[in-house]
Amino acid sequence: MQVTQDDVEDLALGAAILGTGGGGDPHVGKLMAQQAIDEHGPVEMVSPEDVPEDALVIPTAMMGAPTVVLEKIPAGTEIIQSLHRLAEEFDREPYATMPIECGGLNSTIPFIVAATEGLPLIDADGMGRAFPELHHETFNVYGVSGTPAVVSDEKGNVTLFETSDNRTLESFARAVTVEMGGSAFICDYPMTGLEVAETAIPNTISLGMQIGTAVRNPPEGRSPIQAVKRVTGESNYGRAVELFEGKITDVVRRTRGGFAVGEVRIDGIDAYDSEELVIEFQNENLVARRDGDVIATVPDLITVLERETGEPVTTEGLKYGYRVTVLGIPAPRIMRTEAALDVWGPREFGYELAFEPLEERNPGYYRKHGVPEGKRDVLDI
Amino acid sequence: MQVTQDDVEDLALGAAILGTGGGGDPHVGKLMAQQAIDEHGPVEMVSPEDVPEDALVIPTAMMGAPTVVLEKIPAGTEIIQSLHRLAEEFDREPYATMPIECGGLNSTIPFIVAATEGLPLIDADGMGRAFPELHHETFNVYGVSGTPAVVSDEKGNVTLFETSDNRTLESFARAVTVEMGGSAFICDYPMTGLEVAETAIPNTISLGMQIGTAVRNPPEGRSPIQAVKRVTGESNYGRAVELFEGKITDVVRRTRGGFAVGEVRIDGIDAYDSEELVIEFQNENLVARRDGDVIATVPDLITVLERETGEPVTTEGLKYGYRVTVLGIPAPRIMRTEAALDVWGPREFGYELAFEPLEERNPGYYRKHGVPEGKRDVLDI
Repeated sequence: MQVTQDDVEDLALGAAILGTGGGGDPHVGKLMAQQAIDEHGPVEMVSPEDVPEDALVIPTAMMGAPTVVLEKIPAGTEIIQSLHRLAEEFDREPYATMPIECGGLNSTIPFIVAATEGLPLIDADGMGRAFPELHHETFNVYGVSGTPAVVSDEKGNVTLFETSDNRTLESFARAVTVEMGGSAFICDYPMTGLEVAETAIPNTISLGMQIGTAVRNPPEGRSPIQAVKRVTGESNYGRAVELFEGKITDVVRRTRGGFAVGEVRIDGIDAYDSEELVIEFQNENLVARRDGDVIATVPDLITVLERETGEPVTTEGLKYGYRVTVLGIPAPRIMRTEAALDVWGPREFGYELAFEPLEERNPGYYRKHGVPEGKRDVLDI
Repeated sequence: MQVTQDDVEDLALGAAILGTGGGGDPHVGKLMAQQAIDEHGPVEMVSPEDVPEDALVIPTAMMGAPTVVLEKIPAGTEIIQSLHRLAEEFDREPYATMPIECGGLNSTIPFIVAATEGLPLIDADGMGRAFPELHHETFNVYGVSGTPAVVSDEKGNVTLFETSDNRTLESFARAVTVEMGGSAFICDYPMTGLEVAETAIPNTISLGMQIGTAVRNPPEGRSPIQAVKRVTGESNYGRAVELFEGKITDVVRRTRGGFAVGEVRIDGIDAYDSEELVIEFQNENLVARRDGDVIATVPDLITVLERETGEPVTTEGLKYGYRVTVLGIPAPRIMRTEAALDVWGPREFGYELAFEPLEERNPGYYRKHGVPEGKRDVLDI
């Protein structure tokens, strides 16, 4: 597939929905990617299965506080510098680049690299949504080393990491990013085509584009939200389900350990009249409780949309009075294994909660979607 | 010169004196260096002038809080790992190693490397005393890049830095060292033999040994402190001068920005009866005021010694009731240029004070030392 500026427009919107409230505003990354495509032409997006097994793939991403990016606009050269420096370590040119995160800002950053360097971009990522830290990657879950990794800034400063584990990479790279002024560009998890095929979550970037298209141009007679349900239902995620509809009555936020932590209260309307939904977040939406009962948890996607337009509302954008629809999207199976839950299950975010699939926490899920009892395996990828 | 375990014993003592209250307790480094010499034989120490101009010299050092080293004893392999990783960048073996700091702990660390790897050690350093940060180096003052530099820890984690300036190296390396648990091992300022000859402070390691010998075994009929004066008088430093003698009456300490900041008050005895000396420190002793008059400032060395034995008292070791002699040692001329004072003059440590040489602040200096008026250039190196 040849990715155009329009596709990136759709992706930015879809990725904000997959960002589940976090992942950073894709706006700046979108503009930079569109400019790169304008200058260098469309980007070839390839399926993970089409990458040669021994190819060198170097993922590219932004690191740090997305709020900083809005004020400290990247030069655009930092990420190219990181790419070249890491390729030097392998003494070969990369075959392709790839996102490490399909939710939020990092969905578009690799398009800058792909367009500028004339590299294919792989339609896959390692988070399947947005997550806050570098070890929140299927690549990490399934044994790919995050290093050698390179972090660069706009002043030409470069740091190369070789760590014994990927959580250590996160802590080192985070510390250097802070010293770089709060945002930086990283190439990590360099891997072979085979490792991509075995550990990445496939087709997440094209899904982001489809979600964006669905919201911008829903099929005749359908609402944007209905269109999102349909698109996710045809993906390796489970079909999105409406968890709640209501009006925001309260938002509490604080900063804890560098994260935006808080909760939002939503008073039900229509079918949810006299019910209340509370979503707790830590950069991303993590746990949703309806009248006290947990109905969805990380890594399943809890995403808040403006009720009429289907536009995503980030945790920063939550405001009293907004009328919203809350969707739950079952995460792909590769994100729900025991090994994966050890990395990003509710307990990893400080909750005394075991992960239970969204479909099981909501008995109405299959009825709503009309999936026959025997065919409940919506999670195969 | 072949450096033996005994020489290292002397060096550890002399380096603590050159540490001017900081630089970390050399004890652990001394034991590690002695063990390495025991296993691999004496270390060949060479003069900077004897290093081939195109030789690759890789300095080696500990980084972080010296207090952490006492509890998190190094494996001894970290610094070798840093050395090898940095040598890889140059694709050649180092010709020699060198200290970056002759005061405190880092005077002995390179002996571990030299003994283990069978490398010569250059009798020189870049601080001429102890200083807290990586850009406090004559190498930095006179244009040598601190990078590529490598920081390693005992878990095998490696970080390689390529920065646009040496203060940035300091901030990045410091941040990673904190993540490594507060102490780590660094190879920085890789340079040629020519750069060593042009930018290093020569003969500081042998001076440390001579000072140690002077204190441990002063010549017949001389006190340890008299012996220190004599040894420094024959060096590229100025001759040590007694700034004060007295009894410690008060010590104030606090931690600010990772530094041990504070001051010590000393009530004069004998010739200094009814006078008071106040020394302000920030890891190292920075400014000495006698009855309110500044009599010595950084980069000149202000060192507190136990009055009878000449044993150095670190800023951590300052205690009420100690009877001490305070010596001032004029820094070598290479450390007093305008360029050098821009890096480590009193203003760089937050004082609204211009640097004036110790000899000029103390009119009695030349009289005491009997240097004729016309020969006051004690600072030539």
